[in-house]
Amino acid sequence: MEISHIEHIGIAVKSLEATIPYYEKTLGLKCYSVEEVIDQKVKTAFFMVGQTKIELLEPTDPESPIAKFIEKRGEGIHHLAFATDGVQNALDKVAAQGVQLIDKAPRKGAEGLNIAFLHPKSTFGVLTEFCEKPQE
Amino acid sequence: MEISHIEHIGIAVKSLEATIPYYEKTLGLKCYSVEEVIDQKVKTAFFMVGQTKIELLEPTDPESPIAKFIEKRGEGIHHLAFATDGVQNALDKVAAQGVQLIDKAPRKGAEGLNIAFLHPKSTFGVLTEFCEKPQE
Repeated sequence: MEISHIEHIGIAVKSLEATIPYYEKTLGLKCYSVEEVIDQKVKTAFFMVGQTKIELLEPTDPESPIAKFIEKRGEGIHHLAFATDGVQNALDKVAAQGVQLIDKAPRKGAEGLNIAFLHPKSTFGVLTEFCEKPQE
Repeated sequence: MEISHIEHIGIAVKSLEATIPYYEKTLGLKCYSVEEVIDQKVKTAFFMVGQTKIELLEPTDPESPIAKFIEKRGEGIHHLAFATDGVQNALDKVAAQGVQLIDKAPRKGAEGLNIAFLHPKSTFGVLTEFCEKPQE
């Protein structure tokens, strides 16, 4: 496994409509995409900052994991996603070292990436995601 | 103000000694520096991931803001730091748009950077830092 960079930082927000103007007008970043991820019951908005994306996540359902996160902890940084060269290999490697996985195999995430999450209980409190572009 | 990239992501941990092996052995990142920031009552450990650093923060005193964060919310992502081309200008610009500042002027942070924090109440829950390398 080789981590090349931080692919994105996921931030839980109550409302994209309320938050996008802060990132655009106040910080000067450009929202280049808004996408719904039905599976995760969220709407996402993306901003590029150098190599790394900021992914705002608004829940579309009270049962969404993002809705529950906001209910418990308020809005804020939700997860950290590393770009790796092979998600399945990376999962196998960290699992062999005792890391608890949320996803035992990659699944499709926003922007068509192959993604998988590690459990924050075994990553010192950081909900951690691996992701890679699918092979052409 | 121009944000060029994410300078670092600050992660609150109880113990650098316990956490560094996860980032080094499990994730394959290299810890290139450990530094104490007396002012903030923390010890920090840095890892480079592409353009962005991961900064682990261990409190050295129960009164440290990081100790209080961990007590309240547990270990996890603490703040997000943007590299900007002029921290004072950036502060003035966001303040003019209604953002509440923690630091009205830049101060010295880890690695000798000029840094300043914005209050998470006006940044949709994200404790946000601006930083820049000091002028030579």
